[in-house]
Amino acid sequence: MAVYLATTSAPVNIACIKYWGKRDTKLILPTNSSLSVTLDQDHLRSTTTSRADASFEKDRLWLNGIEEEIKPVGRMATCIAEMKRLRKELVEDKDPSAAPLSKYFVHIASYNNFPTAAGLASSASGFAALTASLAELYKLPSTPTELSLIARQGSGSACRSLLGGFVAWNAGDLESGSDSFAVQVAPETHWPDIHALICVVSDTKKGTSSTSGMQRTVDTSPLLQHRIKEVVPQRMKDISAAIIARDFDRFAEITMADSNQFHAVALDTSPPIFYMNDVSRSIIAVIEEYNRVAMLPENGGKRKAAYTYDAGPNAVIYAPSANIKEIVSLIVRYFPQQETFKDPFSLFGAAGVGAGAVIPGFNENVAKTWEAGSVKGLIHTRVGDGPRVLRVEESLLGDNGLPLKTA
Amino acid sequence: MAVYLATTSAPVNIACIKYWGKRDTKLILPTNSSLSVTLDQDHLRSTTTSRADASFEKDRLWLNGIEEEIKPVGRMATCIAEMKRLRKELVEDKDPSAAPLSKYFVHIASYNNFPTAAGLASSASGFAALTASLAELYKLPSTPTELSLIARQGSGSACRSLLGGFVAWNAGDLESGSDSFAVQVAPETHWPDIHALICVVSDTKKGTSSTSGMQRTVDTSPLLQHRIKEVVPQRMKDISAAIIARDFDRFAEITMADSNQFHAVALDTSPPIFYMNDVSRSIIAVIEEYNRVAMLPENGGKRKAAYTYDAGPNAVIYAPSANIKEIVSLIVRYFPQQETFKDPFSLFGAAGVGAGAVIPGFNENVAKTWEAGSVKGLIHTRVGDGPRVLRVEESLLGDNGLPLKTA
Repeated sequence: MAVYLATTSAPVNIACIKYWGKRDTKLILPTNSSLSVTLDQDHLRSTTTSRADASFEKDRLWLNGIEEEIKPVGRMATCIAEMKRLRKELVEDKDPSAAPLSKYFVHIASYNNFPTAAGLASSASGFAALTASLAELYKLPSTPTELSLIARQGSGSACRSLLGGFVAWNAGDLESGSDSFAVQVAPETHWPDIHALICVVSDTKKGTSSTSGMQRTVDTSPLLQHRIKEVVPQRMKDISAAIIARDFDRFAEITMADSNQFHAVALDTSPPIFYMNDVSRSIIAVIEEYNRVAMLPENGGKRKAAYTYDAGPNAVIYAPSANIKEIVSLIVRYFPQQETFKDPFSLFGAAGVGAGAVIPGFNENVAKTWEAGSVKGLIHTRVGDGPRVLRVEESLLGDNGLPLKTA
Repeated sequence: MAVYLATTSAPVNIACIKYWGKRDTKLILPTNSSLSVTLDQDHLRSTTTSRADASFEKDRLWLNGIEEEIKPVGRMATCIAEMKRLRKELVEDKDPSAAPLSKYFVHIASYNNFPTAAGLASSASGFAALTASLAELYKLPSTPTELSLIARQGSGSACRSLLGGFVAWNAGDLESGSDSFAVQVAPETHWPDIHALICVVSDTKKGTSSTSGMQRTVDTSPLLQHRIKEVVPQRMKDISAAIIARDFDRFAEITMADSNQFHAVALDTSPPIFYMNDVSRSIIAVIEEYNRVAMLPENGGKRKAAYTYDAGPNAVIYAPSANIKEIVSLIVRYFPQQETFKDPFSLFGAAGVGAGAVIPGFNENVAKTWEAGSVKGLIHTRVGDGPRVLRVEESLLGDNGLPLKTA
């Protein structure tokens, strides 16, 4: 008997032009376009196995080994139903010999290789991996952009994780949402030199969820509409041009401005929403000072790093690979690390990072030295590719159709 | 021989609609109108004595007992020159028997009764007291609004300290600045029940000065122009109407929204400007939760407090007097005090505030309990009157024309 099984992995993406606000909360249609960098799956990924079988009695889902309820009208159910519809329309209706997988229930197991405590949203990579694995299971002829329409309905930013490199999510105009999809601005091979340093910031406070927060901003911020109509469209053009031209200085300028503007409209919300804390602010101060020195004529006159913050206190610092060693040293100088820096690109050799260091001309007083653990971890990664189909040996579901790995 | 001497005091004001951005940096003409509450001089004030004498050899100034240089083309020199011009035009040119004070040098001594460490801007009350004392010295027939044109050129927000109660600073349109003055929306007697609790927040970091910060916002924030053109004009009308109607709920809603929007455009600046810190954010969380409970139908359905933050981490909480005891208790619960609360309105009696307390229905988890000293002091005051002329016994200058009080 045939076994219908597929395993894929999908990447995390971190936006440079931020998505904040929906014009349709059911279809997850955004109020503005956004643009992200896809991060390398060698470091951060969600892996998902999907299996369809005539013997299964209902659709079931396990996240990190724990079964989750698939709510009847929820986002997960929508994605699965949409993928079954594509299977029927694009495969079974055209080829009567194709197995009727659209009629079978599915078992899905998904696993993130980064801890929830890392504070990275797993919904983007998770829904991208789900969509990609069902597309492989169902042998759909769909392009990543077509699949992004489905992933978008699971979690908006998931649509951007269907593609590698530099990815734009076009807001679209249609009520149906059929023009609200992700497209690749440039593949990772165009500008592989873009690296990322994720600074995992300790936070005691549970922040406002992005789903409820963004709608509060839509409802109450007088500044948001100006951002949507007047600011973001030009920034989308400008940052796309910067990516095509591999102009890091301009890329950094726009990325930082848009991160700050996203947090500005969150603050312009009633009641106000804060995601960054004093540690986040100190990281900004360090990177701004680093850029101030870099922008001096004698130092080349260009920015060397760009911070960006999503709906939480963690910083993601983008930089050309040659600058990462300096940046890690600076961060470690102000935010002493409790754990050894995992150095996947072997920047520091056997001696390790040590106590960190500032660079010549850097004003040390831009931040205080924080207590160890204020930044509780650093993850060094880089731009990467889109979802990957994995071998059957990497399946997360056993022969019995249940997860191999439990939490 | 006649002694020409005048002593006045002037109040602090705290804006509800914020001034942020100049259209003319020399004349100090703002990009938008603003509105403030004048605070009671019984608690916080600048006192200034001016003396004109034919024997003086130059204009001299002492702030808190320390002589300050009067820079030739600086703001202080501008104010003194403008006041001498008014003396000549409005008094001496009309009455040949008037003493030629406009030709004499002046000695000026000014003293703030609140420590610089309180983090309250002293430039507003200081320039208002200076202007008022010279107006009294020169026996000018000018109204407070006319004098506000001069004080504005010393420090923009000083123009609002020329009047008591609720004061609007009209941005004006003219290049000359002659329509950019302060007017009283309502006197303190109209709504004497508005009290204020100033929470002095400890901050290690030297913030961006408001003078340089606001111009960076004008130069780089894409959101500021929208605030100036589309948001502030309506808010000025709405909050003026709320004041006239003594509608605290509406007053609070607008005040908090405008404080947050000011900090939002500061954050939308490149590099971003942060004035609030994690303690400031926690105070916001406490007041928002206090209002959430108050706005429940069973509790009256209306806001009971309004926070506002200037260019620093200190909160000013406006509230009807009946709510201040609850608010102090809440603040002390989350921000334990090292010093005994000075209780000028005798809210707490002999037992004092104690450890503070929350109110029924309040979600205690909106903030953590901070270490003692995070909020290093609480000042309870209320809406108050405009500049006062003081008796000669309160002069800060001695018979020799030098300050009586030294630092």
